[in-house]
Amino acid sequence: MKLLKEKMLKEGIVLSDSVLKVDSFLNHQMDPQLINEIGREFANRFESESITKVLTIESSGIGPGILAAMYLQVPLVFARKRKSLTLTDNLLTSSVYSFTKQENYEISVSNRFLSSQDKVLIIDDFLANGQAALGLIDLIQKAGSDLAGVGIVIEKGFQDGGKVLRERGIRVESLAIIHSLKEGNIQFAEQAMEGAIHE
Amino acid sequence: MKLLKEKMLKEGIVLSDSVLKVDSFLNHQMDPQLINEIGREFANRFESESITKVLTIESSGIGPGILAAMYLQVPLVFARKRKSLTLTDNLLTSSVYSFTKQENYEISVSNRFLSSQDKVLIIDDFLANGQAALGLIDLIQKAGSDLAGVGIVIEKGFQDGGKVLRERGIRVESLAIIHSLKEGNIQFAEQAMEGAIHE
Repeated sequence: MKLLKEKMLKEGIVLSDSVLKVDSFLNHQMDPQLINEIGREFANRFESESITKVLTIESSGIGPGILAAMYLQVPLVFARKRKSLTLTDNLLTSSVYSFTKQENYEISVSNRFLSSQDKVLIIDDFLANGQAALGLIDLIQKAGSDLAGVGIVIEKGFQDGGKVLRERGIRVESLAIIHSLKEGNIQFAEQAMEGAIHE
Repeated sequence: MKLLKEKMLKEGIVLSDSVLKVDSFLNHQMDPQLINEIGREFANRFESESITKVLTIESSGIGPGILAAMYLQVPLVFARKRKSLTLTDNLLTSSVYSFTKQENYEISVSNRFLSSQDKVLIIDDFLANGQAALGLIDLIQKAGSDLAGVGIVIEKGFQDGGKVLRERGIRVESLAIIHSLKEGNIQFAEQAMEGAIHE
């Protein structure tokens, strides 16, 4: 998605070989015009999938999620994160390991909002090692819902989340795939492929 | 706002004299068409205020916030909640007391996204005792920004947050004001006023 990649090049801050800071437009401050186009793009890519629900996870998935759900004309459900859950009545829960924080946290959704009648599109802002996406897929399976696919704003192509999901046969649509953040530069996956073709 | 009140009457669950559950359309599952109209309504009410930023708080403020920001054509910033903050570099922080959880939590925003040039509209899903709104106002003051007003989806008129804010001269626009939840019924503030007029 051209608009997104331009924004990443213009405002993204490469903090290390594995960390890109995009808090000026995606996950702390949000650019609503960009988020609107992101939502529209997800809806376009999955419009033939008869989706009945969009599922995301608090907090930074909610912006792209609500716009995607608006264009798909279905409800958005966002999973909540907790370090530990005490009351789990009527909750579908899953445990997710955070490599960043090196700890487990629980994610949950009410069983009132996902059912065996649902075909669910997962939306999230980042895909790195795929742990959060796998947790959301686990919730969908526990609900007996069908998974339509996973829509990601920015995929870190140099981490293995995308590979893990695609090897399971899951459709993953990432609007930007980062091949590398080496030497402080964002290199997108298409550039890497073009480079390989030209060599 | 008629559409919102109809939805509250149809899907809201009165759990006690002070608690209304609206998780089927506002703060767990979200109805994007309704949230879109809510965002448009906030933008209409504050369009003459030369707003430069919308500020909300994770997680359930983000949906209404991003749509309001989209119609106002300004960025959304969402404050993050933490039980305690260790790293506070470049962060504006404030302490908020939660009556529900009976504990303090910290809210924060990066000082890169609020400045003395900004005129800020606060958006949140609920206004009860006003602690969260006062925390957000504190962040705005610390940033040296101007406060344009506060837009609330559902105000609990029987708690004193609205009174506290309005007595400070702050413009508060609530799309639905609940007068009472007694006997399992939602009574809106206008109905209460109409009742008083007819008496």
